[in-house]
Amino acid sequence: LTTEFELIEKFFSPPPHHTRLAGGDDAALLDVAAGMALAVSTDMLVEGTHFFAESDPRRLGHKALAVNLSDLAAMGALPRWATLSLSLPRVDEAWLAAFADGFLGLAREHDVDLVGGDTTRGPLNICVQIMGEIDATQALRRDGARRGDTIWVSGTLGDAALALRALRAQHARQVETHSSDTDWEYLIDRLDRPTPRVALGRKLVGQASAAIDISDGLLADLGHVCRRSQVGAVIQASKLPRSAAFVRHADNAVAHQLQLAGGDDYELCFTAPAAAQARVLELADEAGVTVASIGEIVSGRAVIAVDASGAEIRLARKGFDHFE
Amino acid sequence: LTTEFELIEKFFSPPPHHTRLAGGDDAALLDVAAGMALAVSTDMLVEGTHFFAESDPRRLGHKALAVNLSDLAAMGALPRWATLSLSLPRVDEAWLAAFADGFLGLAREHDVDLVGGDTTRGPLNICVQIMGEIDATQALRRDGARRGDTIWVSGTLGDAALALRALRAQHARQVETHSSDTDWEYLIDRLDRPTPRVALGRKLVGQASAAIDISDGLLADLGHVCRRSQVGAVIQASKLPRSAAFVRHADNAVAHQLQLAGGDDYELCFTAPAAAQARVLELADEAGVTVASIGEIVSGRAVIAVDASGAEIRLARKGFDHFE
Repeated sequence: LTTEFELIEKFFSPPPHHTRLAGGDDAALLDVAAGMALAVSTDMLVEGTHFFAESDPRRLGHKALAVNLSDLAAMGALPRWATLSLSLPRVDEAWLAAFADGFLGLAREHDVDLVGGDTTRGPLNICVQIMGEIDATQALRRDGARRGDTIWVSGTLGDAALALRALRAQHARQVETHSSDTDWEYLIDRLDRPTPRVALGRKLVGQASAAIDISDGLLADLGHVCRRSQVGAVIQASKLPRSAAFVRHADNAVAHQLQLAGGDDYELCFTAPAAAQARVLELADEAGVTVASIGEIVSGRAVIAVDASGAEIRLARKGFDHFE
Repeated sequence: LTTEFELIEKFFSPPPHHTRLAGGDDAALLDVAAGMALAVSTDMLVEGTHFFAESDPRRLGHKALAVNLSDLAAMGALPRWATLSLSLPRVDEAWLAAFADGFLGLAREHDVDLVGGDTTRGPLNICVQIMGEIDATQALRRDGARRGDTIWVSGTLGDAALALRALRAQHARQVETHSSDTDWEYLIDRLDRPTPRVALGRKLVGQASAAIDISDGLLADLGHVCRRSQVGAVIQASKLPRSAAFVRHADNAVAHQLQLAGGDDYELCFTAPAAAQARVLELADEAGVTVASIGEIVSGRAVIAVDASGAEIRLARKGFDHFE
């Protein structure tokens, strides 16, 4: 007899580092540092909607926490605690051990305590809530972008969307993945094991005027910032940073679509006054992340991308939404 | 085009009462009162496991929040904030409006702000996280029960299990519910619309030595308290409080099973020093809840129930577990 209780204790009970009481009671007890606010976000991942049924559980564990950490990165918060709820079709101990390994490995890397959770029987569903500390007056909100601000992104864009496109095509044809190819290994890693830009988010506190993480696609996510800030944006598509693997494998016909509307990059898109350019580059360097200036906040409400000639790029789809 | 974003804003955006920033950004920002710790708990409800496919969405919304509030009640915490993640097979606006009405109605009653969430497409799954404030040194934990303490329960036990048993039998036979019968209306309400004992939990802070809410059945849940407190327990089955409807409809053959091992009551089970009996009755009266003393904490590890003659009652099943 494997009980819900024992499942949690067996696979998900690392000793907490900075938590008064974690697991085994009706609730966890967290001490939030004096003067700090709590930043809270939640993401639910569902088989068939967010990942393929046969996904590697270790990568899934990593990704489930990574996408939540990315939300706190986009607030400039310090991640501290997480809860994990799992609906599982059956008790598969090998699957659970690998999932926990991926989840807890990334949790350790960010010194995040897993403080609570729930397991139940049902279709595979992973719901994570992340909590962190932030000086609330300094949070990187979406509503602070101002006309004339420079628009920045971290890392490179389009890698995850390119990998997803290739995997979907292969999935439809039921063929093997290109896992022996270094470029495809890199691209699929960008999709499956995103790197939440927590250190960069922390550095940008007090410098960036607004920030968001890119989960639904650059135009869609920058659109949220512009809507909340009541401004518009012009992106220079030629400035969008591309990885070497992306350049080698994304043909020109789809490159703009993938970079502007592809989801799952989990890079940060942020705005900062034009005068802060040198400081932003310095802070990114300290965080160990490349950043690129890709455009400018303008008046109005339109969020557009233009090519090198200044002509607007029209896309078939602006972003990814689960209920489109 | 209905987007994830608009769904949340349309159905789940009441103005927050005590929250710095709720909804619409990467994370919510919560100000935890100085000197207070945060109590955090999460519960996931899955169609087919926790509720029938055709369940009334308004009742489901109520229950999804109620079971989480019950966890905070069992800690003695003051509920303040919640997040809600929903996986939905389709966008059914009437269903969502009714679900939100049930959820937000109970949230208003407890002055809980809904501060974040996620919606996605997939099999129906409801994941709620509840957060509240507590003086951490005063929390009603599971590990404080001591030999000689009196064991108490709030309200009545077995109502929800009796209703579930009847509904399952009807479900199997595909017949109508007894909804015209006042007793069955009461019993089904106890299953579908449990009353989290938040006020009682708050009153018991500083008085109860340990507490838990009864979700998996009295013996199973008291067993968690005893395991964490390293004690045993003897329950006098004849003292278990019964509702009038339960007395009329539960035959003697199953009454003990339903009261000792039935889940979903969401009453509080707590322990307090024997000398505190008058004070406990006074506090329960102030909270507007009846409580009954049902047994005693003893040395050893065994958790048993005895009949009026002192003989141990043996049950087929000790409690409810999703992976039995």
